[in-house]
Amino acid sequence: MMVAMRSEATPEQIEAVLARIRAEGLTPLELPGGERTAIGIASAIPVDLREPLAQSLEAMAGVDHVAHISRPYKLASREFISADTVFTVGEVAFGGPEVVVLAGPCAIESEAQLRAAAMAVKQAGARGLRGGAFKPRTSPYSFQGLGEEGLALLAAVAAELDMITVTEVMDSHDVERVAAHADILQIGARNMQNYSLLIAAGETGHPILLKRGPGASLDELLLAAEYCLSRGSNRVLLCERGVHALDHTYTRNVLDLSAVPVLKEVSHLPVAIDPSHATGVARYVPAMCRAAVAAGADALLIEVHPEPSCALCDGPQSLAPPVFAALMDDLRALAALGGRCVYDPRKSEKP
Amino acid sequence: MMVAMRSEATPEQIEAVLARIRAEGLTPLELPGGERTAIGIASAIPVDLREPLAQSLEAMAGVDHVAHISRPYKLASREFISADTVFTVGEVAFGGPEVVVLAGPCAIESEAQLRAAAMAVKQAGARGLRGGAFKPRTSPYSFQGLGEEGLALLAAVAAELDMITVTEVMDSHDVERVAAHADILQIGARNMQNYSLLIAAGETGHPILLKRGPGASLDELLLAAEYCLSRGSNRVLLCERGVHALDHTYTRNVLDLSAVPVLKEVSHLPVAIDPSHATGVARYVPAMCRAAVAAGADALLIEVHPEPSCALCDGPQSLAPPVFAALMDDLRALAALGGRCVYDPRKSEKP
Amino acid sequence: MMVAMRSEATPEQIEAVLARIRAEGLTPLELPGGERTAIGIASAIPVDLREPLAQSLEAMAGVDHVAHISRPYKLASREFISADTVFTVGEVAFGGPEVVVLAGPCAIESEAQLRAAAMAVKQAGARGLRGGAFKPRTSPYSFQGLGEEGLALLAAVAAELDMITVTEVMDSHDVERVAAHADILQIGARNMQNYSLLIAAGETGHPILLKRGPGASLDELLLAAEYCLSRGSNRVLLCERGVHALDHTYTRNVLDLSAVPVLKEVSHLPVAIDPSHATGVARYVPAMCRAAVAAGADALLIEVHPEPSCALCDGPQSLAPPVFAALMDDLRALAALGGRCVYDPRKSEKP
Amino acid sequence: MMVAMRSEATPEQIEAVLARIRAEGLTPLELPGGERTAIGIASAIPVDLREPLAQSLEAMAGVDHVAHISRPYKLASREFISADTVFTVGEVAFGGPEVVVLAGPCAIESEAQLRAAAMAVKQAGARGLRGGAFKPRTSPYSFQGLGEEGLALLAAVAAELDMITVTEVMDSHDVERVAAHADILQIGARNMQNYSLLIAAGETGHPILLKRGPGASLDELLLAAEYCLSRGSNRVLLCERGVHALDHTYTRNVLDLSAVPVLKEVSHLPVAIDPSHATGVARYVPAMCRAAVAAGADALLIEVHPEPSCALCDGPQSLAPPVFAALMDDLRALAALGGRCVYDPRKSEKP
Repeated sequence: MMVAMRSEATPEQIEAVLARIRAEGLTPLELPGGERTAIGIASAIPVDLREPLAQSLEAMAGVDHVAHISRPYKLASREFISADTVFTVGEVAFGGPEVVVLAGPCAIESEAQLRAAAMAVKQAGARGLRGGAFKPRTSPYSFQGLGEEGLALLAAVAAELDMITVTEVMDSHDVERVAAHADILQIGARNMQNYSLLIAAGETGHPILLKRGPGASLDELLLAAEYCLSRGSNRVLLCERGVHALDHTYTRNVLDLSAVPVLKEVSHLPVAIDPSHATGVARYVPAMCRAAVAAGADALLIEVHPEPSCALCDGPQSLAPPVFAALMDDLRALAALGGRCVYDPRKSEKP
Repeated sequence: MMVAMRSEATPEQIEAVLARIRAEGLTPLELPGGERTAIGIASAIPVDLREPLAQSLEAMAGVDHVAHISRPYKLASREFISADTVFTVGEVAFGGPEVVVLAGPCAIESEAQLRAAAMAVKQAGARGLRGGAFKPRTSPYSFQGLGEEGLALLAAVAAELDMITVTEVMDSHDVERVAAHADILQIGARNMQNYSLLIAAGETGHPILLKRGPGASLDELLLAAEYCLSRGSNRVLLCERGVHALDHTYTRNVLDLSAVPVLKEVSHLPVAIDPSHATGVARYVPAMCRAAVAAGADALLIEVHPEPSCALCDGPQSLAPPVFAALMDDLRALAALGGRCVYDPRKSEKP
Repeated sequence: MMVAMRSEATPEQIEAVLARIRAEGLTPLELPGGERTAIGIASAIPVDLREPLAQSLEAMAGVDHVAHISRPYKLASREFISADTVFTVGEVAFGGPEVVVLAGPCAIESEAQLRAAAMAVKQAGARGLRGGAFKPRTSPYSFQGLGEEGLALLAAVAAELDMITVTEVMDSHDVERVAAHADILQIGARNMQNYSLLIAAGETGHPILLKRGPGASLDELLLAAEYCLSRGSNRVLLCERGVHALDHTYTRNVLDLSAVPVLKEVSHLPVAIDPSHATGVARYVPAMCRAAVAAGADALLIEVHPEPSCALCDGPQSLAPPVFAALMDDLRALAALGGRCVYDPRKSEKP
Repeated sequence: MMVAMRSEATPEQIEAVLARIRAEGLTPLELPGGERTAIGIASAIPVDLREPLAQSLEAMAGVDHVAHISRPYKLASREFISADTVFTVGEVAFGGPEVVVLAGPCAIESEAQLRAAAMAVKQAGARGLRGGAFKPRTSPYSFQGLGEEGLALLAAVAAELDMITVTEVMDSHDVERVAAHADILQIGARNMQNYSLLIAAGETGHPILLKRGPGASLDELLLAAEYCLSRGSNRVLLCERGVHALDHTYTRNVLDLSAVPVLKEVSHLPVAIDPSHATGVARYVPAMCRAAVAAGADALLIEVHPEPSCALCDGPQSLAPPVFAALMDDLRALAALGGRCVYDPRKSEKP
């Protein structure tokens, strides 16, 4: 941590900052500059002291700003765990050589719709079935999901087809109920900073798919993961699904693929990409899936609907089954180039 | 609603769109253009059909995009209720001639701290006491608030001083508990799209202070209000507290004051401004408070701490009591120019 | 400046950074932390060494990032010139007690239109006449301005009415020509980083109105001013005209009024606000003008057109003369509250 | 085009809008809705009438907003030219099966530096040599480039190695001089809306590399291209180089790779990607190059410096030659998967 004083700071104000740092048992070092003085701290600062100390220093007279040297997260950091985290859900390993594809409809609408989607994506090589039972909708007038009935359908159809499942949980008090039916708990982008939910999900020890909020920084995403990790979960899959950008003319958000190399560098957790929500437009999804695999993503979330124009939710971004099947062939070839694989149901063994 | 077809759309694709619209009992009108055809809808579309119909049309072959004519919200709109909504909390009216100031510390830290802050802001003219008992913190290592103990302190101190109270509720299952202690339920910016929470808060019928998420559009804010309004609450105070911007060098967010004239035009609900969170820097808060009143805000949320450099939370953005008192005098003069008022405890009667 | 090393940096890499800093004649100080080492610099770094040194250090092995303590600008900074810069153009002083209003049409369309606009704004208290002769237009198919003919009209009409003038210059080779006709050279938002133009304008010594690009940080704005200041101009008026934001539904950009207190703190230059371009909507302009004066702006740019719906450019954001006249009365009262003034032609003397 | 009236619009205001549209010889169609009336236009609107008509309508009483159906650009659109534009510079074809790599240092610093960089990138398969002679620098204190001397060096070194060249031109009056030395004129991101420069570059008929401004929408990029195309150039290479985003912690901008499928859909022009400027960090560049090729980019701009930590400009984002060579092998394999190729100097013939 380093404190930049204002240029008009008095010697007394500088002394007060030095004293405040010493009061925490830390060693300050004065760095006089041309226009202003900076004060560095030549000791390790415990992770839980960083933010309160910084805020306290910033509120002192004569202080301009505080710059951090260390990252604000700990358990999620590569500095804390240097090897890649690889975890399994059922027989599927995340963070290993397989690029795992999770696919299915945005919302579970009926047994027929879910089964049609599931069979199509399973046949093309998806390992997991995604589908929303509780839907976070911007408008109270939109379809809100089938709820518990949807959860039961998801579990039943996936069991039939030997797939793992992922579904969103929106409320801390639904966590147990959803965890009873689904293999992976999804925390959606709008709830990335719903801390009650992060804590409740973390306490189950269940695998968690944590989506980055479109306005969230990567540090905020990793701090949200830290909430889960610090409560006992150690199977968190980070997911980039598009960030807010200035131009909404052609796509909903901008898919930030540089999040892949950055997150793989600063964290040990596996990284998934969701190009369906990022673009919002089915015809741009295949190019973005290919790019995600080329960039090194560990998993992909892809929306597939047996008949997109009849979908109750997000039809415009859903791939039709034949498009998805062709895409999976592309992804297999791309993954192989990078020494990785995408499951191929036409081959006898699983990766 | 208007559907823009792609330039290469076939007559069959155009016919399918016309048929889809007619199937809803609506009347489509074809608008041939130079490069592409558009299809307008010459009938009223029920509010709950707008989004599903738009998504269904966007997913059809040959469709480029759909443009909306009507707003997506209804109960929150000026078109639904044309007069300003004025509601009272205790003896304080929001949306009327008084510009209501709610002030106090970011977090409730102790009885002594809360009472010192409350006495200072009350004496300067604040009508409400704000203070967080449950704190949404980006990092799990930051101070998380006193919880229920803080709620009790807030209620006790405010009762002593004859102030109304506002405090944040972060979880749908805390709503009843918080509503039992506080006059206004605050939904924080991070939870603006936590729909379980919006529904639970709306169902209490309690007044709600709804903060705009820093990445949320005004339509998304009004749809969040719609969740509360459609569940029975009719006392929603909208609050702008800074939006995400590109430059974080000097302020945390950018305070979007044009939200005041826009929201007052499209909605009947009162509008509050929170310059403390928007700027994050105490020395920029007074200028932004003055600007907010000049722009027509109905209420202000201002963080005040008896000793900002000792605050456990957000000290850098908290005003010291003397700065707040001087600011309140400025605001009184500004409000009077616009035919409004700010409470003055030195005068005998309340506004 | 402070260099944050990566946690896995080797002692040799740290030594290389220390050596690189010493090679510039500066004194490095090592600040060991818990997870990583930082290296501070305990000497003044000349302004022209800051960026190259930072880039060189960032490109070295083992370096994570470099944080700056000093601001990147010098001549524009409060640290270099501590008193407010007040400069006059004709008889009008910028940066002093008067809040100067510059008004007129977006584009000069004809002598009749310009004279009608000029008479209206002069009568209401504007000190300067604005009007574009060279128009930067996003589309090559839009009206591009009257060019030299427009310049002559502007000068003639303003002379008649004893007003100062401001008009945009878009090309470094037009600078002399525009300076011969206009009192203040406007550098538009799209050209804020057109360095040839900044240099050419700075070399004339003419007063410059420098608009912030909607994607530019305040530091970038001040560095653009630095280009002008370092070439001999010392009369630069900084202008905020809205920044890019996520929500374009109701306004074009978001007016960043916190730029006023920030710029007045870090720089000595006067600050203008342009609410017409920021909002893009005439009916939101008055509230934003009032807010700008309350926030402490030194000048306002306001678009006024005798008949907005016939304007060749930006009619939707132009005020009709009666609206402007009423607004000016509001601004006079607001300015007076803050110990400032807005010119009133109904009074005998000028401010 | 469609005009959404305000809900309180009077029949007279609606009639005035209908009359205004008819006055242009166009056919308006009224679309009554539940809350408000919309007015569509059932005729082709000439491209140069679209913006002035829209602005005129938006400034009329009772109008809420205007929505466009047609794109604002014409010559750049797929609707105007349906086949991919493929153009050659020397022997290199852009927009065809080859993915063209242009590489070299950010700035030309010396003959030795440029030759070392050129030989390295040529040997690894780059077809073009990039290098700045005129450098747009945010700070006036940064290295501004070698100017004319740099241009001569670039031409000489490229001729020796049989490479094509690209270099930035920053001022309309340098266009001829730069065109005399370089094969492709680069318009930088900061100058994307410097219309004098776009026009001057377009008039040369020279190939143009047009970089998207980080705050520019894709429509604004295509309108900038339209400036060049409408002046006679028909060899414009569009280039995405990162857009402004909220999080600057780890990368400078966010590379918007969805720009590739979108631009290839709406325009016939080839599309390049510049991951060096987008990320600003050399260690993230290879992943983003791979992703760009997987997404379908037609060309790549990559910064390579013989010794990044000694670079006078942008060292932190420059690849060292061995990293670049390894990356080129990856790109060859990736391009082949998509039926494309990257030049391999170890094979006898050129693509």
